[in-house]
Amino acid sequence: MSPAVQPPRITGILETVLYVADIDRAERFYRDVMGMQQIGKEPGRHVFFRVGSGVLLLFRAETTRRAGSLPPHGANGEIHVCFTTAPAEYEAWQKRIEDHGVAIEQETEWPGGRSFYFRDPDGNLLELANADIWPG
Amino acid sequence: MSPAVQPPRITGILETVLYVADIDRAERFYRDVMGMQQIGKEPGRHVFFRVGSGVLLLFRAETTRRAGSLPPHGANGEIHVCFTTAPAEYEAWQKRIEDHGVAIEQETEWPGGRSFYFRDPDGNLLELANADIWPG
Repeated sequence: MSPAVQPPRITGILETVLYVADIDRAERFYRDVMGMQQIGKEPGRHVFFRVGSGVLLLFRAETTRRAGSLPPHGANGEIHVCFTTAPAEYEAWQKRIEDHGVAIEQETEWPGGRSFYFRDPDGNLLELANADIWPG
Repeated sequence: MSPAVQPPRITGILETVLYVADIDRAERFYRDVMGMQQIGKEPGRHVFFRVGSGVLLLFRAETTRRAGSLPPHGANGEIHVCFTTAPAEYEAWQKRIEDHGVAIEQETEWPGGRSFYFRDPDGNLLELANADIWPG
């Protein structure tokens, strides 16, 4: 018997993307409310943030659907994404979100922790978890 | 002077989401072509995969836009996401993708590495990088 050939492996997700209608408004929300570290911006097209080992890319689909230097992409609707915080900072986050006038739509207990749901100015469904709620 | 209050921190992105029209077809692609570890499935609604420290969630937007146990979400279009692999496995990935009949649309050199672009069966724009191409 010859040894099984192992397929190459995907090691992680580097870029997570949301689409927004207004780049400046998205910049203010993710920088000032979410406290993320901004790493790039092209007015009217995109704003980028470093988030842990990955990056969050916010694009205006109207611009990225056009042929350009990279293949076209873009979506309309309300995309879901879940972020993590340290357990000790979870309740501070709930307060911070509400202090910024953003409604918390729901809180859920999971086997591995808990999380709450809210929305960015474009209606994308954000979730913030106090742990990796997908253990094992 | 009182010390500045540090805002709580986001530590990472846990869930990255794509929307697909056919859950079984997406399951075959992400499991058999991308080699990802499947961690959940509800036929006709979703299929979930573990990817490094995060998870990739594929939903049928037609189902997740309905009111249910979690807030509604969903999008139409071609969402972009970038995955990483080890530098030593990058060329094996290019071969594997092409061997599965998936076209590589473009390859790009970045200051921090290189990446190539292809699509899942729903047209979502996938990218595979040989490093964190967002250094510093």
